[in-house]
Amino acid sequence: MPIVVQKYGGSSLADAESIKRVARRIAETRKAGNDVVVAVSAMGDSTDELLDLAQDVSPLPPPRELDMLMTAGERISMALVAMAIHDLGMSARSFTGSQAGVITDEAHGKAKIIDVTPGRITEALDKGHVVIVAGFQGVSQTTKEITTLGRGGTDTTAVALAAALRADVCEIYTDVDGVFTADPRIVPKARKIDRISAEEMLELAACGSKVLHLRSVEYARRYDIPIHVRSSFTPKEGTIVTDQPGSEGTEGEAVEAPIIAGVAHDRSEAKITVVGVPDQKGKAAEIFTAVAASEANIDMIVQNVSATDTGLTDISFTLPKTDGQGAMEALQAIQGPVGFSGLQYDDQIGKLSLVGAGMRSNPGVSATFFRALAEAGVNIEMISTSEIRISVVTRSELLDDAVRAVHTAFGLDSEEGEAVVYAGTGR
Amino acid sequence: MPIVVQKYGGSSLADAESIKRVARRIAETRKAGNDVVVAVSAMGDSTDELLDLAQDVSPLPPPRELDMLMTAGERISMALVAMAIHDLGMSARSFTGSQAGVITDEAHGKAKIIDVTPGRITEALDKGHVVIVAGFQGVSQTTKEITTLGRGGTDTTAVALAAALRADVCEIYTDVDGVFTADPRIVPKARKIDRISAEEMLELAACGSKVLHLRSVEYARRYDIPIHVRSSFTPKEGTIVTDQPGSEGTEGEAVEAPIIAGVAHDRSEAKITVVGVPDQKGKAAEIFTAVAASEANIDMIVQNVSATDTGLTDISFTLPKTDGQGAMEALQAIQGPVGFSGLQYDDQIGKLSLVGAGMRSNPGVSATFFRALAEAGVNIEMISTSEIRISVVTRSELLDDAVRAVHTAFGLDSEEGEAVVYAGTGR
Repeated sequence: MPIVVQKYGGSSLADAESIKRVARRIAETRKAGNDVVVAVSAMGDSTDELLDLAQDVSPLPPPRELDMLMTAGERISMALVAMAIHDLGMSARSFTGSQAGVITDEAHGKAKIIDVTPGRITEALDKGHVVIVAGFQGVSQTTKEITTLGRGGTDTTAVALAAALRADVCEIYTDVDGVFTADPRIVPKARKIDRISAEEMLELAACGSKVLHLRSVEYARRYDIPIHVRSSFTPKEGTIVTDQPGSEGTEGEAVEAPIIAGVAHDRSEAKITVVGVPDQKGKAAEIFTAVAASEANIDMIVQNVSATDTGLTDISFTLPKTDGQGAMEALQAIQGPVGFSGLQYDDQIGKLSLVGAGMRSNPGVSATFFRALAEAGVNIEMISTSEIRISVVTRSELLDDAVRAVHTAFGLDSEEGEAVVYAGTGR
Repeated sequence: MPIVVQKYGGSSLADAESIKRVARRIAETRKAGNDVVVAVSAMGDSTDELLDLAQDVSPLPPPRELDMLMTAGERISMALVAMAIHDLGMSARSFTGSQAGVITDEAHGKAKIIDVTPGRITEALDKGHVVIVAGFQGVSQTTKEITTLGRGGTDTTAVALAAALRADVCEIYTDVDGVFTADPRIVPKARKIDRISAEEMLELAACGSKVLHLRSVEYARRYDIPIHVRSSFTPKEGTIVTDQPGSEGTEGEAVEAPIIAGVAHDRSEAKITVVGVPDQKGKAAEIFTAVAASEANIDMIVQNVSATDTGLTDISFTLPKTDGQGAMEALQAIQGPVGFSGLQYDDQIGKLSLVGAGMRSNPGVSATFFRALAEAGVNIEMISTSEIRISVVTRSELLDDAVRAVHTAFGLDSEEGEAVVYAGTGR
C-alpha cells in the first residue's frame, strides 16, 4: 500500500472544528487506499502561550525544561486529531516524537534529527491504524532527553518520517495554496508555482520564503522525497517540490523550464559595519572569529576599499536581528586589540533574492535584474550570488517596490501566460 | 541524606505566582538538608479544560488517546516548577511518569501502579538535582502505552515514589490545613486531626473524605510510608497519617487515643431498589451478577422482609451515581427472567460514616450514634458497619444536620478540649 505522510501546522489545527476538518482530510486519504502517517504541530497559538507561561515563571528558563514544556503542545494536538479520526469510524494511534523513534542530537531548542527508528509506526500501520506523530520533537540519542527541533520543526519531522518509511510523498498542509513566485501580500500578481526543484526551493527558503522550513527541504533533497505543499482549506493541488522528472505526461516535457523560479525577500536581518579596520593581514579573521564565538549566523559580507589611502577599511556583514546584540557585544570586547574605530548597527535593511536554476545557462539574468532595480530607484548596498541566486541588500522601505519591479521584469506577473511558462514543465 | 517526597495539587499550582511559591517551599526543604522528589498535578483547572477540548472533538474519545491528552497537563506544570526552582539558583530535573519509572497495568484512565523503577530519579538525586515528577501518569508494563491513574492519582504517584525511594516522609500539600474531624464547610467546629492511623484514614477516604485519595492511603499503609497532609499556603503542621508509634516524646504516649477519629459524609451515591423480588434462592445472586457485569461498584445492600406474606421482597443497594445508568439498564434487561415487579432509582440520598479505631473496645458507640441521629430527627434508611466504622444512609437534605449532631455527640467540637483529646496521642 502506498504510504502518504502529511503535515498539518498550527493554523490548520486552531480549534476543535479545524481538527475535525483535518481528520476528515486524513480519513479521505486513508480511504483512497493509502497508509497515512501524520505529523502535527501544536494548536494555533498554543506554543506562544506556553512560552509566555515559561517567561512568567522564569526569565531565562533552562533549555531542557523549556523543551519538556513546549512538547506538551503537540501532545495535545496529536491526541485530539487521533480522537477526531476515531470519531469518523477509523482507528488512529498517536505517538510522541520519542515513541515514533525520532532520534536527535542533544541540542535543546534546536536539535537535529540524526536517525528515525519507526518500529512502532510501522507496527501500527500494519494493524491498520492511521498514525499521528507529534511534530517538532524527538529524544536525544545518548541522554534520552526530550528535545525540540526549533520553530518550523514539524516540516522536518514530516520529511524525516517520509524518508524513514520510504513514503511516496510528503504533503505539507498549510494556510496558503502553495509556493508562489513572490509573497502575494507584496506582489498581488504573484503566481502559484506548480512544480519547483528542491535546489531552487532550498534557495528560496534560505532567502526568506516562509512556506517551507529550510531544514525540511534539505532533508527532502538528501533523501529524494517529493514534497507537496498545499492548502488544508481547499482540495486544489499545490506545489510539488522535487528533483525527480515530472510525470504529468509527455506533453509538458517539451515546454522549456522557466529561467526564474521566484523572488524571495527577507526583513529579519540587520547589518553591522565595523568602521576603520586597519588594513592588515588577520584583522578580518579576528573580527569573524569573535562574531562566530557569539554564535551569530553571518549571511553576507562586504569589505569596502577606503577612498583615501588611510590604511583603513570598513567591513560590513548581515546577520539575523536576533543575533545582533550578541555579535555587537562580542565586537565591542575586541575593539581595543583589533584597533578598529567604531561599530554601526543598522536594522532598517531588506534583502531581495532572485532564484532560478536557469541562471546557469542564461548570462543575461543579472543585467535584467540590476536594470530593473535601477529603474525602480532602488539603491544596492550589498550583493551576493550563488550559481542559481542573486541577492541584494537595500533599504527596508524600498524592499516591496524592489520585489515588484524584479517580479515584473522577469515576466513572472500572472497576466503574462502562466499556462505557457509553468504548466507541466517537467522540472 | 533524608529523602522527602512532596505532592502539590492543581490548586497549589494555579498560576505562575503559585508555582513560584511552591518552588520556594521546595527550595527550603532542599536547603534544610533533604533530597527532594516532588509529584505535581496539572495546573488549576487545566485538566477540565483538556477534557472539554476532547469532548468538543469526540463525544466518546478512545481511552488511549484521552490518556495521551490528559498527561500533557502534568508535563506543563512539572516543567514550569523545574524552571521556577532553577530561577532560585537550584538545579531541578523534571521527569514524566514514564521516565520516572512509574509502571502500571494497561487500564487506561484508571491504571494501577504495579512497579516503580526510579533509576533516573536516583541518578538525578545523586547529581544534586531536585526531581520533579509528573503525577497521575505512568507507562503500561507490556504495551509501553501512556496511562493515567484516574482523578486524584497524583497522591498515589507521590506515595509510590516515596515507597520506591524509601523516603522518610511523603508530604501531601493541599489547600486545607490537614484532615479534619468533619468537613469544616458543614461543621464549623470541626478540628484538624494532628495524627491519625492509616486504618482510620482509609475508612474516612472510602466514606467521602476528599483530602486524600483512597488508593494513596492503601499504598502508604502497605509500604508503611508516613503521610503528612498539610497546607501549601501556611508553614503549619498538618495531619500525620501513620500506623507507626508516635515520636513526639513520651509525654503524649500516656494520653489515651480518642475513640472516634472523625465523621465523613458522601453525596455521590444513589440508591436502587428492586421491588417485588420473588423470595427464592438465587434471585439475589442473579440481580447482583447483572449489576456487577455493568461494572458498577456496589456499596451498601439491604434486603427488606415484606410486611405481608406475599412471598416477595425488596432489595436496595447503593452505588456511585456515575454507575447508576449502567446498572439500571442491566437490571431492566433481566426483569423478565428474574420476575421482579419494578425498579426505583433514588439519587437524593446521603451517607454519613463514623470512623474510629476505638469502636473495637467501646461497645457504647453505636448507642450514642443512633441516639444523636434520632434526637436530630434523622431517619435512617440503610446501615452498614465494619470493625471501626458505622455508616448510615439518610435523606440528602438531612445529611448536614446529621453530621453536625454526630460530631457534637462524640465530643469532637473544637471547644471541648482539643489539646486533651488530640495532642500527641501516640496513635
